[in-house]
Amino acid sequence: LITPEMLEKIPCELRIARKYPGRADLAQDEMDQWVIDAALSGKQVVRLKCGDPFVFGRGGEEVTIFESRGLEVVVLPGISSALAGPLSAGIPATMRGLADRVLFITGQGAGNSAPHLPEFDPQMTIVLLMGVGGIKRIAQEMLDKDYPEDLPVTCIERAYHPDERTTPAQLSTLCRQMKLAQVRAPAILVFGKVASFPRRKPHAKNLRPAEENRPPDVIQGVGIS
Amino acid sequence: LITPEMLEKIPCELRIARKYPGRADLAQDEMDQWVIDAALSGKQVVRLKCGDPFVFGRGGEEVTIFESRGLEVVVLPGISSALAGPLSAGIPATMRGLADRVLFITGQGAGNSAPHLPEFDPQMTIVLLMGVGGIKRIAQEMLDKDYPEDLPVTCIERAYHPDERTTPAQLSTLCRQMKLAQVRAPAILVFGKVASFPRRKPHAKNLRPAEENRPPDVIQGVGIS
Repeated sequence: LITPEMLEKIPCELRIARKYPGRADLAQDEMDQWVIDAALSGKQVVRLKCGDPFVFGRGGEEVTIFESRGLEVVVLPGISSALAGPLSAGIPATMRGLADRVLFITGQGAGNSAPHLPEFDPQMTIVLLMGVGGIKRIAQEMLDKDYPEDLPVTCIERAYHPDERTTPAQLSTLCRQMKLAQVRAPAILVFGKVASFPRRKPHAKNLRPAEENRPPDVIQGVGIS
Repeated sequence: LITPEMLEKIPCELRIARKYPGRADLAQDEMDQWVIDAALSGKQVVRLKCGDPFVFGRGGEEVTIFESRGLEVVVLPGISSALAGPLSAGIPATMRGLADRVLFITGQGAGNSAPHLPEFDPQMTIVLLMGVGGIKRIAQEMLDKDYPEDLPVTCIERAYHPDERTTPAQLSTLCRQMKLAQVRAPAILVFGKVASFPRRKPHAKNLRPAEENRPPDVIQGVGIS
């Protein structure tokens, strides 16, 4: 999600996706065509996405389409909300003794199918993206698959925005808690022991280096290639 | 992995981790103490990590330690090599029809244990970090768990470095291919249908915006918050 302040910094022609509910595929086709038309007319086009273009971002499809039209494509990695969302709430995806594997799933698969859930694994963190709409079905499937009723879950809404909000719950009470809190998309849900990692004050307000002009005194702990 | 060019840009005191094989825990304790000593003496300390501090990076442990000493900690997200490594080789972690879930595992768990592997799931991408040393055991366990012998696997060494190299294989021939190619750590292995996504020329050489001074003509496809 791009803020208006960021848009103001864009120094060239800007076209904004018209991805409203119910017309995502149409909007995708339209955007692809915009890119193709502009690139074939000799322009250099940046397709700016939120997060990582290769994580539930249709980036792979776009590369295929653009290359089939003879365009040269360079893909840059991004910071995936699947990791940055939990981090913003103070939740590490991995933590020795608590979780040494991480699974990303989406609540809105192709054809609106329910996500496939693995067997319960106490050392695995599950990060559910786009899960608010289908949470009732997903939580029920977890319970049906013998995920523990007291499995810690944390819901993070609008990570890194001034109104970021964290709703902690357990699997068996998740839907009720989310309803009580009136959780709305976009939100990320983290399931697993790390989800009960002591939550600290939201970091969002601390994350504006421009407001903190003092350079650091020590940098340490880097790896050298 | 930080290049010498990046180190030269650091304008303050710099201390480098002494994490050599066999003394990782000692080095970690030493680094933690460096941070605590410097911070308690009034300095502002940046603990710079490669990748994302909360993905197999001990970030959660460090936060716990530093906060127990009364330090104020702000954690910034990073670009995890678990996603950027495959991306650098042109492999999307998710791709509609091929994979709509992604699992990160590590070959070097606490106590050097083998990673726990889920049942085979044809729509799941598995990204194995730090897996070169233990690949024989991991590949055998996958075969024992009925992962297909022809499951596509791609090994990416030194992602984003000038000498980045990609070794494609199938599960049953993986160890032989890696031995033939003399694959060395650090490397990332991607298992799943996306691993056979048409590989393109490595992007590393294209990824230096400073060499390409022309600004883009069009930016499109951003989301507005």
